[in-house]
Amino acid sequence: MTRYRASAPITNDWQHFGFDVADGVATVTLNRPDKLNALTFESYADLRDLLHELPHRDDTRVLVIRGEGAGFCGGGDVNEIIGELIAMDAHDLMGFTKMTGDVIKAMRECPIPIIASIQGIAAGAGSVVALAADFRIVAASGRFAFLFTKVGLSGGDMGAAYLLPRVVGAGRATQLLMLGDTIDAETADRYGLVSELVADDELVEATAKLARRLADGPTLGYAQTKALITRELDMPLGASVELDAMTQALLMTTEDHAEFHAAFNEKRRPQWKGR
Amino acid sequence: MTRYRASAPITNDWQHFGFDVADGVATVTLNRPDKLNALTFESYADLRDLLHELPHRDDTRVLVIRGEGAGFCGGGDVNEIIGELIAMDAHDLMGFTKMTGDVIKAMRECPIPIIASIQGIAAGAGSVVALAADFRIVAASGRFAFLFTKVGLSGGDMGAAYLLPRVVGAGRATQLLMLGDTIDAETADRYGLVSELVADDELVEATAKLARRLADGPTLGYAQTKALITRELDMPLGASVELDAMTQALLMTTEDHAEFHAAFNEKRRPQWKGR
Amino acid sequence: MTRYRASAPITNDWQHFGFDVADGVATVTLNRPDKLNALTFESYADLRDLLHELPHRDDTRVLVIRGEGAGFCGGGDVNEIIGELIAMDAHDLMGFTKMTGDVIKAMRECPIPIIASIQGIAAGAGSVVALAADFRIVAASGRFAFLFTKVGLSGGDMGAAYLLPRVVGAGRATQLLMLGDTIDAETADRYGLVSELVADDELVEATAKLARRLADGPTLGYAQTKALITRELDMPLGASVELDAMTQALLMTTEDHAEFHAAFNEKRRPQWKGR
Repeated sequence: MTRYRASAPITNDWQHFGFDVADGVATVTLNRPDKLNALTFESYADLRDLLHELPHRDDTRVLVIRGEGAGFCGGGDVNEIIGELIAMDAHDLMGFTKMTGDVIKAMRECPIPIIASIQGIAAGAGSVVALAADFRIVAASGRFAFLFTKVGLSGGDMGAAYLLPRVVGAGRATQLLMLGDTIDAETADRYGLVSELVADDELVEATAKLARRLADGPTLGYAQTKALITRELDMPLGASVELDAMTQALLMTTEDHAEFHAAFNEKRRPQWKGR
Repeated sequence: MTRYRASAPITNDWQHFGFDVADGVATVTLNRPDKLNALTFESYADLRDLLHELPHRDDTRVLVIRGEGAGFCGGGDVNEIIGELIAMDAHDLMGFTKMTGDVIKAMRECPIPIIASIQGIAAGAGSVVALAADFRIVAASGRFAFLFTKVGLSGGDMGAAYLLPRVVGAGRATQLLMLGDTIDAETADRYGLVSELVADDELVEATAKLARRLADGPTLGYAQTKALITRELDMPLGASVELDAMTQALLMTTEDHAEFHAAFNEKRRPQWKGR
Repeated sequence: MTRYRASAPITNDWQHFGFDVADGVATVTLNRPDKLNALTFESYADLRDLLHELPHRDDTRVLVIRGEGAGFCGGGDVNEIIGELIAMDAHDLMGFTKMTGDVIKAMRECPIPIIASIQGIAAGAGSVVALAADFRIVAASGRFAFLFTKVGLSGGDMGAAYLLPRVVGAGRATQLLMLGDTIDAETADRYGLVSELVADDELVEATAKLARRLADGPTLGYAQTKALITRELDMPLGASVELDAMTQALLMTTEDHAEFHAAFNEKRRPQWKGR
């Protein structure tokens, strides 16, 4: 997506989740199904680094995050993570919580649209990863549990106290984050937490279809839509209108905008180039 | 609404849409029904200027924006606008996008409540004009399409990436702005984008009824409700509470507040004066 | 909740509402049922001071606000308050509106979760008190009316123009605050204004159950969830992620977090200590 590559090589071997790129679509598969794809110190670190690297790959225009087996992601592993945390000093605790927050921040700041493809449980860190995605395609079996208070911590983990009120409103966010109870897919849909609700056996196809569409472009239009939504949550009205105006004026000079006009007049589908 | 009129005369001849004022209710009618009331360079400019002028008219206490024919507004005209844009330089592109953004900013900053009365399609700029109104009365045939990515541009046009997440939540806003798909009136209502959902043959009457009510006042109360909602979206809690307190203390000195109390004790309806 | 008590004694005699503490649960009962529990100058002042004092009591971990009789709270008393206001000068008006705003600000900044238990009408100031609570348990008879414009004032009273758009979205908030119409419990639930909708004869029990759960802890986790939601409504993404990271690192050193881990491994329920 950028010509500004520096010296660091692209990582081809992500050891702590499955990773695959095919025809513009990158897929991260959390692959410890026997542990509900619980995250570990290593998989958080890999996610953080992948998200920073992804915009520099030439071959990726959308990212899908999915889980293997019965659930999406059960959160941080109770023994591999919590068991360690209770013995750590401030230096290591801060290192950990900053890393997990960096994953969510990188998801929101990544110019590539991110789809979370969710069956079964998305709990704890898994629910925040789902929340930070741009799209949540959720199977009927999908469930969300922002369960942090149930482990004696704050419901505001990894940016959840910022993001969730902006997605479902502050009342429902308080209920979900303070109590940590599990909600099913239908409730999540009613709250506005679901982009597309599908049957379990349609999840793979619905995810592939949306990923294909996003990968086909217009890449700059999609990237800037995400960037503007992300940034304007933190901006006042006047500045937002100004940012929209500058962005749109720039995109009006692109080949993709001209391609729309040509295709419209020739009554054909546009062929987006991402430039 | 103000005694601070300057030298500029009131414009009586708006050439690029229908304009009418009757008993406190101003109505803009987008009137190119054969083109789904698509906007042109000239109609954007007229809207921008009208919105700045409206608060200085003595005869207007509410603005209705409606479209003639089958749709509300199909957005910027593909040939009259997009056909021109693809040949423009930065100076003219910025001039255009700033003007369109100014229309939306003026709608939000106008102290007069604005009703969008919507049948059929509200697309592109038409959907953002609807979004920036205070009330959206939507007929069963109403549809919204924030279709900017479909023309190769950013979904964040004219403040949409600021406004839509604050109306329907960031998840649904991402879906609508990134994909640009059309939603029907019922879906828009479920998302919180509809103030009142009516049958198509009730749209005129429902619009007139709400306009009448808003025009009857209390004018300062309505104007300040709009101003506080608009500004407090950009303000922290403490400052908002302070702004509310000062506003309310001032309004407590008005004739309209005293009129409420008198009417309450006399068991009659208040006669608002707007002072 | 704190070791930092100063010289001021704890108030045991709140004269303008019922007050009771039992097993960690404080209850404020608005107790003028013949006047729909309308607030007076004195009860506002008592609420303001109670909310500042509550975090310094050792015996309180949750606050319930309820009304006696048919309604929750009908707002400011028309004759005892409005009748006085219309004769006041700027000094006294500002004193009054700042005090009422202070009640709402104190509710949001209080580290103790607050439950509003609502049957019948919550109108005017009563609707804003309900809105500022963390949880709204609403009986089928519950109704909300942000009726400020109906008394000739601004709909943005006591922080309502800040809070309501963040709970129900800016479109529905405009409708509710500008028009001041009453909505029933079911509509409020659909809008996201209701945490739990119950039958009228279940209200006492549902309130007691949630209060018990919140009083049982983990107290720091609940307090920080509330603080982070409150503060991050006013913070950008990056700062919010940083605040979450520091908060969570600190809570990971607490006895309650270790207790979760011990209880998990011993397959028993955690016994929270609030430390």
